[in-house]
Amino acid sequence: MSSESTSKDSIGIVKTQSVHINQPLKLACGVVLPEHKLVYETYGELNAQRSNGILLCHALSGDHHAAGFHEGDSRPGWWEHYVGPGKAIDSDKFFIVSVNNIGSCFGSTGPMSINPETGERWGGSFPSLRARDWVESQRLLMEYLNIDCWAAIIGGSLGGMQAMRWSLEHPDKVLNAVVIASSMKLTAQNIAFNEIARRAIKSDPDFCDGNYLQQGKAPLRGLALARMIGHVTYLSDELMGQKFGRELRIGDLVDRNADPVEFQVESYLNYQGDKFSDSFDANSYILITKMLDYFDLSREYDNDPIKAFSHSKCNFLVISFSSDWRFAPERSREITDALLAANRPVSYTEIESDKGHDAFLLPNVRYEDALGGYLSRVATQLQGGAQ
Amino acid sequence: MSSESTSKDSIGIVKTQSVHINQPLKLACGVVLPEHKLVYETYGELNAQRSNGILLCHALSGDHHAAGFHEGDSRPGWWEHYVGPGKAIDSDKFFIVSVNNIGSCFGSTGPMSINPETGERWGGSFPSLRARDWVESQRLLMEYLNIDCWAAIIGGSLGGMQAMRWSLEHPDKVLNAVVIASSMKLTAQNIAFNEIARRAIKSDPDFCDGNYLQQGKAPLRGLALARMIGHVTYLSDELMGQKFGRELRIGDLVDRNADPVEFQVESYLNYQGDKFSDSFDANSYILITKMLDYFDLSREYDNDPIKAFSHSKCNFLVISFSSDWRFAPERSREITDALLAANRPVSYTEIESDKGHDAFLLPNVRYEDALGGYLSRVATQLQGGAQ
Repeated sequence: MSSESTSKDSIGIVKTQSVHINQPLKLACGVVLPEHKLVYETYGELNAQRSNGILLCHALSGDHHAAGFHEGDSRPGWWEHYVGPGKAIDSDKFFIVSVNNIGSCFGSTGPMSINPETGERWGGSFPSLRARDWVESQRLLMEYLNIDCWAAIIGGSLGGMQAMRWSLEHPDKVLNAVVIASSMKLTAQNIAFNEIARRAIKSDPDFCDGNYLQQGKAPLRGLALARMIGHVTYLSDELMGQKFGRELRIGDLVDRNADPVEFQVESYLNYQGDKFSDSFDANSYILITKMLDYFDLSREYDNDPIKAFSHSKCNFLVISFSSDWRFAPERSREITDALLAANRPVSYTEIESDKGHDAFLLPNVRYEDALGGYLSRVATQLQGGAQ
Repeated sequence: MSSESTSKDSIGIVKTQSVHINQPLKLACGVVLPEHKLVYETYGELNAQRSNGILLCHALSGDHHAAGFHEGDSRPGWWEHYVGPGKAIDSDKFFIVSVNNIGSCFGSTGPMSINPETGERWGGSFPSLRARDWVESQRLLMEYLNIDCWAAIIGGSLGGMQAMRWSLEHPDKVLNAVVIASSMKLTAQNIAFNEIARRAIKSDPDFCDGNYLQQGKAPLRGLALARMIGHVTYLSDELMGQKFGRELRIGDLVDRNADPVEFQVESYLNYQGDKFSDSFDANSYILITKMLDYFDLSREYDNDPIKAFSHSKCNFLVISFSSDWRFAPERSREITDALLAANRPVSYTEIESDKGHDAFLLPNVRYEDALGGYLSRVATQLQGGAQ
């Protein structure tokens, strides 16, 4: 269905930056972080009016390294195909900011950081987070970067939730919100998959009630399982069929023998699970899946999405993917309908794709065109002085 | 969508029977079981011509107790709604045989049984099984019961696979095959979910490489997780939304407090997982999910389902459920198409239901009518001497 486009130039070598935000951050759960660290990357140049900033919001397992290459690393950032010179999110036109959010595990303050009050790592005692906490932390970074208003905030999945939350909490600080493969709230099925993933982690004896770091352990088996569950649900049945079918990696089902048999898809999934558990932190996984579950755009607006969106002032681009069954097109249509009913300017595109939820990360010409076309108009408006 | 029908009479108190089959059973993997035990139940009376036998084939977690009540037990069998006097599978008209298959854990020979060669429980060393092994064991039971030909073989999911396999292996021993919510082979996605379930079990340190029985342990956490994964995928997103939505069981997401929050769906799933792990055997779960993965109707028929079904002689009823995404209606249409192309008599019904794969076990008037109507015609034909 989808076709890959020709690759464009990479942003090249990038350096991760970091900042200590010394202002207190009051979290939605009531806990106050007196200070926190954020690691982030930027691509492109901020213009003289400081009006061309784009904020990228990562999803569950994402990080700040969205594009380009780290010195000596052959793998580019997670959104390399869409972020760079001449690309859909064009670093020749925009100053793109990609931040690792608090609670995650790639350098920003999170469960692996030292809790200044105890002198020990936070581990499982890191406070519960909401998407609005990420928004607030991003706003402090924005202040630090001396940007008054984002030209656009862009995110897929949990990233789209942040973009929507920004539009309600800080309507004067964002001109465009791009909400990709997202939802105003998770369904019971989604919560169920997240809970199974969390239980897989907590069932691992090496989880030690969240204190595995202090004990020099890591619930690698549990986290691998959690990832495998997520991974299957982020792909479509169709894509898995094309990619693996019923191909065997080991053994033979025809012969009368009792030797072990392994399907390709089993081996692939086990590999993905193990790879992930080596690079991600289990407490972060628990924390961020709960953020997803807890997110409910209109909870504080009488559970009325129209009322919620009537607080926004920006333009919206909403994108979904046909085979995404965890954040189904229906969820994006609900967002679009609520925006329309609230008289907000919104464009909605459903992209034909067989790649499931993961489609938002993968090359796809129509997606590229939709995103690139929209942002190109944003750039033109900026040049015209719309800001 | 679906509506529940009025309940009819129960079969009442039933007794489980058992038989030691002393003939050797050569399994598809090459291993020979010199003898095996089967536990089973029967409902209704065998007629003088011994022609009104119906074989029920259970699925992954099923057992022989399909209908009625065990003495002192208030819960009926798993197919109570469909099996009994005047019901769709009518015990006034048929002699219904429901057997617990080998490899399972409810009394028939399986991983929990003693391996006569070692004097110890089989545990993880129980030989690998295929659906055809269950068919062969059922055929030995049929011989014991002195039945020459089944009026019908009926099964849902893995049960439907057995019914199809019977029609190919013993075309003269079955007049009707009723294949419900089944498939000619699992998709990669289905295999993936099964593999995650198996890995959850194997990751549990109490699994002890399958030898937990010998060590007085049980991988309860792993098996609970395996069941939770299965359970979510057997339900539809829609049904979970109706049943649980985003209702909370513990805590409150509005207040600024850090107390724990639990959704109803989380509590429900955790309960289901724990309940299951107390009643099922982990080695059986691994064994039977592999049977599902390995099943491929036409593997020995040049991978040609039409060629496969051309070996069958019976009539077929194929039933699917609209919201079943693990054994989707498309899989049943593939069966039906192959049967039609092989010039086999087949009726196909897709039942509107919001209950996912589990629909095949649950009350639904149209399903009841389709199944009952078909079997009522089978009964009439038997009386007319069609046998």
